[in-house]
Amino acid sequence: MGTSLHFLKGHGTENDFVLLPDADGTVLGGLSDEQLRHLAAAICDRHAGIGADGVLRVVRTAASDDPASVAARGEADWFMDYRNADGSLSEMCGNGIRVFARYLVDHEGVDATIPLAVATRGGTKLLTLRPDGSVSVDMGSPEVLGETKVDVGGRSWPAQHVSMGNPHAVAFVDSLDDAGPLVEPPAHDPTEYPHGVNVEFVVRRGARHVAMRVHERGSGETRSCGTGACAVMVAAAIADGAGPSDDDSASYQVDVPGGRLDVRWRGDGHVVMTGPAVIVAAGEWSG
Amino acid sequence: MGTSLHFLKGHGTENDFVLLPDADGTVLGGLSDEQLRHLAAAICDRHAGIGADGVLRVVRTAASDDPASVAARGEADWFMDYRNADGSLSEMCGNGIRVFARYLVDHEGVDATIPLAVATRGGTKLLTLRPDGSVSVDMGSPEVLGETKVDVGGRSWPAQHVSMGNPHAVAFVDSLDDAGPLVEPPAHDPTEYPHGVNVEFVVRRGARHVAMRVHERGSGETRSCGTGACAVMVAAAIADGAGPSDDDSASYQVDVPGGRLDVRWRGDGHVVMTGPAVIVAAGEWSG
Repeated sequence: MGTSLHFLKGHGTENDFVLLPDADGTVLGGLSDEQLRHLAAAICDRHAGIGADGVLRVVRTAASDDPASVAARGEADWFMDYRNADGSLSEMCGNGIRVFARYLVDHEGVDATIPLAVATRGGTKLLTLRPDGSVSVDMGSPEVLGETKVDVGGRSWPAQHVSMGNPHAVAFVDSLDDAGPLVEPPAHDPTEYPHGVNVEFVVRRGARHVAMRVHERGSGETRSCGTGACAVMVAAAIADGAGPSDDDSASYQVDVPGGRLDVRWRGDGHVVMTGPAVIVAAGEWSG
Repeated sequence: MGTSLHFLKGHGTENDFVLLPDADGTVLGGLSDEQLRHLAAAICDRHAGIGADGVLRVVRTAASDDPASVAARGEADWFMDYRNADGSLSEMCGNGIRVFARYLVDHEGVDATIPLAVATRGGTKLLTLRPDGSVSVDMGSPEVLGETKVDVGGRSWPAQHVSMGNPHAVAFVDSLDDAGPLVEPPAHDPTEYPHGVNVEFVVRRGARHVAMRVHERGSGETRSCGTGACAVMVAAAIADGAGPSDDDSASYQVDVPGGRLDVRWRGDGHVVMTGPAVIVAAGEWSG
């Protein structure tokens, strides 16, 4: 295409993203949806491009005509215009939005001392920058939808159905190895999950401390899944007889393959996830 | 580490590399082998780093104490200090050296109109920059070592044993799908290949035109393998009753999953591979 674009690359618990700064929409605002899809896919290609799980275009809500951006004007200055690695539009990503916030503070002069509102296609999210560099994001209220089950390679486990806006099945297992290499999606009840399900396998590590693996629908096993960590925390709290609370009874450490997330089920019912957000490279991409 | 390094990222038929410019050795020359190994592994990490199949440090032979670099002084000005994605030292890569040459011409003022000598741990290689942007590299003389066989999932194929400095087994198949998903290394004769083998599955596409898949020992199935494409060309020429020649009878197109390579078995017995070399990004990495 002869395009040259300024980019940054970052990750949150090894869920990695290319950021495309476009504050006033003049860089990419003139491209069609199809051009943007091709651009995102080319950039995310791990061999011919930079390589990432997705692209986060950083644009002011005033400068993007996306309906989600327009709707958020007045409550959020910035819109996370998120595309998956295949170029398709995506709503929200709990790991990506932390990296997005890290960028805004480091490169756009956003005040890190007050809560930050970011518009996404999954609604406006509130974030808090921590002094240690980690970022907290309000992931909203979970829906706890009862018992189900998942199967892998002839073995079956009971699971908790939790929705974080997207569907999860959380299964407690004796060992994270029990689910095997997870090359195929775990089998699930298609009437309960007509559009597929993200499946988490969880072991206890200690009091309010769990570790998980996740199989994401459409992506396979991944290094981290933000909504999955929240669903796991909620299922663990329920199993422990705990519920939403502002004391430490509803605060869990959730280890994912790519790092550590801290998840709190606040007294008002919202789940708040805290985790790292790191920018590792910046430069120019030529496509 | 608090390190900040200038980098470029490029690929040849989707075999991708991070280039680290260090002409006079002042950037990385002071690091120990262990530090360099960790650095390369961190940079090549596809989620927490930039992501690549390997790192190509670009250093003058006069500025590197590597024995291969010292030995090449006088015949080559530049040393391709190549490490695999796990940080281990590597000898030579037919796709990587084309990207290395592209960088030298575009960024170090190397003359593209005369043959370019590049020192590697696999010896000094001669390259030619083509007007269309592609790069030719003299891959040396093959050793044709007779018939063998490979097995995948209970099926068995006869194969040609060809060494390009590293061992290959080239099997002609009816369809590239015949070998299945190739998640496991193909079974081979351990007495013939005591250190493992790179296995190519090949179909005919037309006169002097083949297509291949490759399973690289230690890496699994990859998008491209330069020595593999050369071994495939040699095996195809032998099957066609052709041999080294300066006319077109020994010039083949070899399609790999990541693109197209042109391979010629020259009259002097050397195999010359020509293919694309593209630099897609440049910037600063922070580790």
